[in-house]
Amino acid sequence: MHILIIGAAGMIGRKLTERLVADGRLGNSAIERLTLADVVVPPAPQGFGGKVETVAADLSEPATAARLAAARPDVIYHLAAIVSGEAEANFDKGYSINLDGTRFLLEAIRQEGLRQPYKPRLVFTSSIAVFGAPFPEVIPDEFFTTPLTSYGTQKAISELLLADYTRKGFIEGIGIRLPTICIRPGKPNKAASGFFSNILREPLAGHEAILPVSSDVRHWFASPRAAVGFLVHAGTLDLAKVGPRRSLSMPGLSATVGEEIEALRRVAGEKAAGLIRRVPDETIIRIVDGWATNFDPKRALALGFKADTDFDAIIRSHIEDELGGRIGR
Amino acid sequence: MHILIIGAAGMIGRKLTERLVADGRLGNSAIERLTLADVVVPPAPQGFGGKVETVAADLSEPATAARLAAARPDVIYHLAAIVSGEAEANFDKGYSINLDGTRFLLEAIRQEGLRQPYKPRLVFTSSIAVFGAPFPEVIPDEFFTTPLTSYGTQKAISELLLADYTRKGFIEGIGIRLPTICIRPGKPNKAASGFFSNILREPLAGHEAILPVSSDVRHWFASPRAAVGFLVHAGTLDLAKVGPRRSLSMPGLSATVGEEIEALRRVAGEKAAGLIRRVPDETIIRIVDGWATNFDPKRALALGFKADTDFDAIIRSHIEDELGGRIGR
Repeated sequence: MHILIIGAAGMIGRKLTERLVADGRLGNSAIERLTLADVVVPPAPQGFGGKVETVAADLSEPATAARLAAARPDVIYHLAAIVSGEAEANFDKGYSINLDGTRFLLEAIRQEGLRQPYKPRLVFTSSIAVFGAPFPEVIPDEFFTTPLTSYGTQKAISELLLADYTRKGFIEGIGIRLPTICIRPGKPNKAASGFFSNILREPLAGHEAILPVSSDVRHWFASPRAAVGFLVHAGTLDLAKVGPRRSLSMPGLSATVGEEIEALRRVAGEKAAGLIRRVPDETIIRIVDGWATNFDPKRALALGFKADTDFDAIIRSHIEDELGGRIGR
Repeated sequence: MHILIIGAAGMIGRKLTERLVADGRLGNSAIERLTLADVVVPPAPQGFGGKVETVAADLSEPATAARLAAARPDVIYHLAAIVSGEAEANFDKGYSINLDGTRFLLEAIRQEGLRQPYKPRLVFTSSIAVFGAPFPEVIPDEFFTTPLTSYGTQKAISELLLADYTRKGFIEGIGIRLPTICIRPGKPNKAASGFFSNILREPLAGHEAILPVSSDVRHWFASPRAAVGFLVHAGTLDLAKVGPRRSLSMPGLSATVGEEIEALRRVAGEKAAGLIRRVPDETIIRIVDGWATNFDPKRALALGFKADTDFDAIIRSHIEDELGGRIGR
């Protein structure tokens, strides 16, 4: 089996690569070939027995997708995107990558299939940003997508294209709407959602973290490990069961900031929890107020996607995966 | 006021033009200039006091939209589309006109506004084809758009773009989802939905009509007059009241084929109703089975859009507008 990951240098892309290399297979198929693409050349994975190519690929160039499709990978993970904040600040760039890039990819696959039958599985990472406030406290699977950002718009459009290209038989598409990833490894960043991870990751490493919102703010989360689990499952599940509605809200964990902190206290102690400093930020409070807090992802659960069980488990998986099993002092 | 109609040669475009010419104004503003565009040069309207231009315009050519936007119309009606059947049969053509054409238009307006402030009202005709079965018996305003045709996909994508360009302040957009137009004037056509009109229009003209489905088939209708009313209202209503969700299911009339026939009998007599010949067509029965039957268009009603009251009124308006007040024998 040949797997292509577009956006392989990103956090999720790297973790998916690691998992696929560790498993050596996807479902029942041994992985013989991996193509890892991103705007910067992704790192080559260690310890993979098959053939690996790492390529620099700008999806906003039409020729890029044609080149990637010409190698006829069996499964394509399309994770590449300009993130929300940048897509909002740079309108042209967001549309160029997040909309045109996806369309070039779909069209390249279709053209490849017109030359000689070809119908790969395409796993697309969408986002809960396809939903825009106001919404019900718990968002059902059939709720409409009225995004309030350009990023969310581009993701919602890509979902529609994915469904139509699937319906017409050009691809086997599946879109998965990721919850907010927490605990996001790495440095604190300026994303408005950053604090959800910062308040756990930084104290676990022995550093102070700023909490800009109140403890009762509720949000929708998945650990990096759960997100990779969604991708692997999307790469293997029987797509005939999915039907024509090809994009699914993934099962996440609905939790408040207060519940995050309580879990931190349970897993890492009072000292860690004490490293969180409350500095209310009106801008962030206002932005976060417009975000989804909870979902009822019936379809994804019925199809076998698995959520994190609780924040204690999320914190423990971070300690295992990122901190070598040790909490910082 | 300068009004541009793109798709002015189509049935709705011609009727909208007639109405605007007859009114001489849109809301409180006198119409000084009309630009009528279509792939074929639209007919120039009779009796208009202002300036009229009729232009051939292929919206799938990027330069076309730029040229139209350069004249800086105050209100733009975007009615142009490849219809459902053709968009399904010709994948490239459908995407080229219905998606790229709409995007070129939005982008041309944005670029015009970047040169010098410009923010026209853009009224976009969408369709109930943005919904795909299965759906509830009555479709609420917040139901998700999971189209089952390329046409519906292209309309749903255009709605998303319209909302995002509006949110970013590039246009004042409003999308209106038209019910199936009935009674559609002209010749019987091969559209799967054609019979809904044929069984009224043909008997009213003294001709036989074929009914391929059973009497209990229910569907969602608007007369041409009601549709033009929606467009005029969309061109004048206070858009601040619409909020960020810019596309609305229009209020229609939910009726069965049997109710259509009963109305025909009441308005035109037993002889007219007797001209309907039942010839079941399994293909059409299957297609129509996947169509929406009823809506609860709360938002559009609250915003002042007006539906037809009953099929008797729809038939009478057809007799007035198309048959010079006389039923054929």
